[in-house]
Amino acid sequence: MDISKFFAPEIIFGLDAISQVGESALRLGAKKIFLVTDCGVKENNWVAKALFYLEQAGLEYMVWSGITSNPKDSEVAEGAKAYLSSHCDAILAVGGGSPIDAAKAVAIIASNGGKIQDYEGINKITKPLPPMIAVPSTAGSGSEVSQFAIIVDKQRKIKMTIISKSLVPDIAIIDPLLLQTKDSRLTAATGIDALSHAIESYVSLAATGLTEVHALQAIELIAENLRESVACRTNMQAKSAMAMASLHAGLAFSNAILGATHAMTHQVDGLLDLHHGETNAVLLPHVMEFNLISCTEKYGRVAEALGENVTGLNKQDRAERAIIAVQRLVRDIGITGGLSTMGFKEEYIPKLSQNALNDACLVTNPRDASAEDMARIFRKAL
Amino acid sequence: MDISKFFAPEIIFGLDAISQVGESALRLGAKKIFLVTDCGVKENNWVAKALFYLEQAGLEYMVWSGITSNPKDSEVAEGAKAYLSSHCDAILAVGGGSPIDAAKAVAIIASNGGKIQDYEGINKITKPLPPMIAVPSTAGSGSEVSQFAIIVDKQRKIKMTIISKSLVPDIAIIDPLLLQTKDSRLTAATGIDALSHAIESYVSLAATGLTEVHALQAIELIAENLRESVACRTNMQAKSAMAMASLHAGLAFSNAILGATHAMTHQVDGLLDLHHGETNAVLLPHVMEFNLISCTEKYGRVAEALGENVTGLNKQDRAERAIIAVQRLVRDIGITGGLSTMGFKEEYIPKLSQNALNDACLVTNPRDASAEDMARIFRKAL
Repeated sequence: MDISKFFAPEIIFGLDAISQVGESALRLGAKKIFLVTDCGVKENNWVAKALFYLEQAGLEYMVWSGITSNPKDSEVAEGAKAYLSSHCDAILAVGGGSPIDAAKAVAIIASNGGKIQDYEGINKITKPLPPMIAVPSTAGSGSEVSQFAIIVDKQRKIKMTIISKSLVPDIAIIDPLLLQTKDSRLTAATGIDALSHAIESYVSLAATGLTEVHALQAIELIAENLRESVACRTNMQAKSAMAMASLHAGLAFSNAILGATHAMTHQVDGLLDLHHGETNAVLLPHVMEFNLISCTEKYGRVAEALGENVTGLNKQDRAERAIIAVQRLVRDIGITGGLSTMGFKEEYIPKLSQNALNDACLVTNPRDASAEDMARIFRKAL
Repeated sequence: MDISKFFAPEIIFGLDAISQVGESALRLGAKKIFLVTDCGVKENNWVAKALFYLEQAGLEYMVWSGITSNPKDSEVAEGAKAYLSSHCDAILAVGGGSPIDAAKAVAIIASNGGKIQDYEGINKITKPLPPMIAVPSTAGSGSEVSQFAIIVDKQRKIKMTIISKSLVPDIAIIDPLLLQTKDSRLTAATGIDALSHAIESYVSLAATGLTEVHALQAIELIAENLRESVACRTNMQAKSAMAMASLHAGLAFSNAILGATHAMTHQVDGLLDLHHGETNAVLLPHVMEFNLISCTEKYGRVAEALGENVTGLNKQDRAERAIIAVQRLVRDIGITGGLSTMGFKEEYIPKLSQNALNDACLVTNPRDASAEDMARIFRKAL
């Protein structure tokens, strides 16, 4: 028996799609909305815009923004308390991966009780969650369509991966206009996050015909548009393409899971509170080099999707061009330096490599990876 | 405001996926299942297999097979009566497009009342439908994932197109093993149905980045596998690829709608009770010829997806290769002759062309088509 599953939310995509939040919440039967966001998103007026449409639909709301980047277990516990005492009946997340993941975690605790650590791993959620709508303000996390939530365990200093079908929001509303208020550094980091979702899910052991088309399309769109999106805040053609790319990558990795890059970056980000996209940018090419012998054919397709001319090259050379193209893209958008420039110390390596073995993302990596293998990759990426 | 929507059911795909019907029905909260099927499917033991898994899950059931190919309004009314008196609380369709569409129509009447004509067109359903699971036994209709149901109005002798998000089943279970019991003629006809879904949705005015990847992938898989699937009942590699192709095409057309081919075939099938795939096979190349000036660039991509070598050709010639490739595929799988060999008479043309103007599928055809245009196409296809 070789059975695969594919699950996606209802998707609403387009310029000014945020105008659909009120009508969408009504369709989910909501009366009072718990809006999860962060301070940066609030400053950029996207929350005010969402609230305008909620009010227009006759809905009550409460705004909660008690989270930081890489949301923490304690913040989630506070959020769940706030949700329960607010008598809200649905959750709307507006923001990047952090607020959306935090909203999912709040939804888990509010409806299933306990602490967020109880749900680490795959399929640990038993009771239904409140209705959820996600409006991403970055093009990278894919959390608006994914079965994933990533939460930091402050004591263990690691990122926990929580995977469950019930973490897929009911409705994902993707409005490329929201991408205009991100600076070039965040645009670059989130873009590489999307690229790493696409590449890791494409070569994942759980990839299927349904996930592969989304992964390849994401890679093509990122190769063609990320540079221009980083270069200019108001290039709406590039922003729209990156929003679509992130969506494709999200659909791919939500259903095919990821690989060693994510298993490793989750440990680094948890320890040092770094931007996930930047640690991905550093580790992805090294993990690709390690994985190459397990998926040479597929890396050849990745190289083509990245825009490389592979005519006349043999299988091995084609595959290597994928790695070169990723390195060039990372450099072009201004991410330079290795892990050591980010405050990462060699002495962390044994512990983090060991912790990465327990990350749910490692299960689908196409090449068996031991703690020693991952330690070697960390060292190369210093 | 240029906003698009994309909606898909939970998808379970793979050899022996039919074994998931019981567990899937339990997850939807069902206690007693109304199983809709037709006599052919019953004979091939797929219904017995489904019932085995329902019993294993402790579920009660009632089997209803009171439908013919191209299901009729009166059959749907009978089905709704049977559903309501059976005290079932969920619907499971096992079969080709006819039983799945009939199951959807039964669900509409059972929960929304009235007669099926009341729901013709787009978004006429107001009340929620019972939970629905669809298990296709052909690779063609895409109904297991689509927002469409096509029902014959016996008095008007036309096929009514009903489109609504609530017609997407909750769970689509696609098991390529079921394709083994289809003869080569049905395999050919349903395969061309899937191809026409893919091509029409790819050039549809409502196509988006999300639907286009599914459409192109469907075209590639059909070009590579339909001939072999028609040639051999037990070629499971080809059957699996065709099941995946039909799924991709279903996701594409469910969200991008179709075009003039379907607007026209719905009239012919309604009048003469023909197999929808065979009328598609005859009309599709002629409609492509008519549409060519509206989507030349896209037809070039279709030609490539169909496996044509278009290197060095100009845009116009590339596009024409798409039509030639479709004609060759249709001929190779044994569909020959025009509409007149199917009992279609020239005198039908004025009325059918006029009726086609009212079909919901015409709205998204890439070239404006008048009744006179469609009459000309009908005449060419005689």
